Amino acid sequence: MEALKMLAENISVVFVEPETPGNIGFLARAMKNFGLRTLILINPCELEDEAYYQAMHARDIVEGALIYRDLSEMIDSLEPDFLVGTTGVPGGSYNVDRIPLRPSQLADAIRPSSGTFILFGREGDGLSNEEIGLCDMVVSVPTSEEYPIMNITHAAAIIFYELFRDREFRCEGLEEASALEKSLLLEEMDDILSLIDIPEHKQRVASRVFRNITGRAFITAREAHTLKGVLRRIKNRMKG
Amino acid sequence: MEALKMLAENISVVFVEPETPGNIGFLARAMKNFGLRTLILINPCELEDEAYYQAMHARDIVEGALIYRDLSEMIDSLEPDFLVGTTGVPGGSYNVDRIPLRPSQLADAIRPSSGTFILFGREGDGLSNEEIGLCDMVVSVPTSEEYPIMNITHAAAIIFYELFRDREFRCEGLEEASALEKSLLLEEMDDILSLIDIPEHKQRVASRVFRNITGRAFITAREAHTLKGVLRRIKNRMKG
Repeated sequence: MEALKMLAENISVVFVEPETPGNIGFLARAMKNFGLRTLILINPCELEDEAYYQAMHARDIVEGALIYRDLSEMIDSLEPDFLVGTTGVPGGSYNVDRIPLRPSQLADAIRPSSGTFILFGREGDGLSNEEIGLCDMVVSVPTSEEYPIMNITHAAAIIFYELFRDREFRCEGLEEASALEKSLLLEEMDDILSLIDIPEHKQRVASRVFRNITGRAFITAREAHTLKGVLRRIKNRMKG
Repeated sequence: MEALKMLAENISVVFVEPETPGNIGFLARAMKNFGLRTLILINPCELEDEAYYQAMHARDIVEGALIYRDLSEMIDSLEPDFLVGTTGVPGGSYNVDRIPLRPSQLADAIRPSSGTFILFGREGDGLSNEEIGLCDMVVSVPTSEEYPIMNITHAAAIIFYELFRDREFRCEGLEEASALEKSLLLEEMDDILSLIDIPEHKQRVASRVFRNITGRAFITAREAHTLKGVLRRIKNRMKG
């Protein structure tokens, strides 16, 4: 029960540029159904009555929503440990930025003690490539190929459900890496990539892949520390 | 693929006395997202534009909905093999024999070759005790005790998701690396580790960490290929 509560408290739900007030309400209600409380709105539409009406008993979540002008401002201000994007249009295997996890894989990977922010995009267009690019991982609900695009708050409800689905059976032990530890690790890798003779765009892809897998693995502090040490030695050996 | 298709074809979704046209549309869309096609409406409100609007690309499901005056008439006419009720208020006044299943238990129990009808009740009051009494089993989505009552179409989306969760849908683009690809990647990393000057047990720890994070990240074939290429170049640079 402690891990369950900790998880619920450490997840923030971010709705990027919601276009319809009702959807803000639907999202807030789905959050409260699973014990989530922190809603962040990025450049939202006006919060009309419809938002409060659809929220039903989750009106407090809408009222307490944090509002930011853009995603970068939010990230600078709140410094998420993990940023999880959601998409209904997972890319092919050549679009590295959009290789998605299933909700169950997110549930397996997520650490209750981390500050995890789950981003939902605009009703019409979802998250931009640039916004997805900021995320540590991307999640997509597996659907029928015939009609894969879900209502955004339905997708959210499924992801929340999955996060808490087996929660009482989980145990928690490892301490996750902080945003700083992860970024130092990624810097080491980038330094190494700059020392090998490959075109710049391939460097970028490789950097992104490394970031994706450390992100999706919810790398622990200890693991990040070990890898960073090894990468530093590799770098020195390459230089020397 | 056959079991998946058979299951989707043999499930009928019954909305008992829907009060809001928009919810009929939301439900139809969620159905189509999971390949379901047969919608039955019992004594519904008028199907106004809102129903078609919210259905988006599932308009055909709303248009093709079967309509009955009451539940008994539908049962007499279509003779379901299994009738599954849904409730947001498990326990309480219901018969103790009807302690609800979780959606995952329904997914385990359901037979793809049987005609299973899943009933969703009125937005305000759900299914009556009498209607629940007609059901072979009752399903409820586990939620926070603080606010257990879900939006009806959110609950439906979660139940549909769970029914197909471990069946054949795949996220496009999530082609996991094969065991061989992963082991070639780990070999490259081990080669590199053997070239830096650290004690053997630290090498083993680092190797293990790298294996853990690629494993937990569900690394894809494409990502494994990219990383392996980079590691090979790093190794050559270290040697040369």
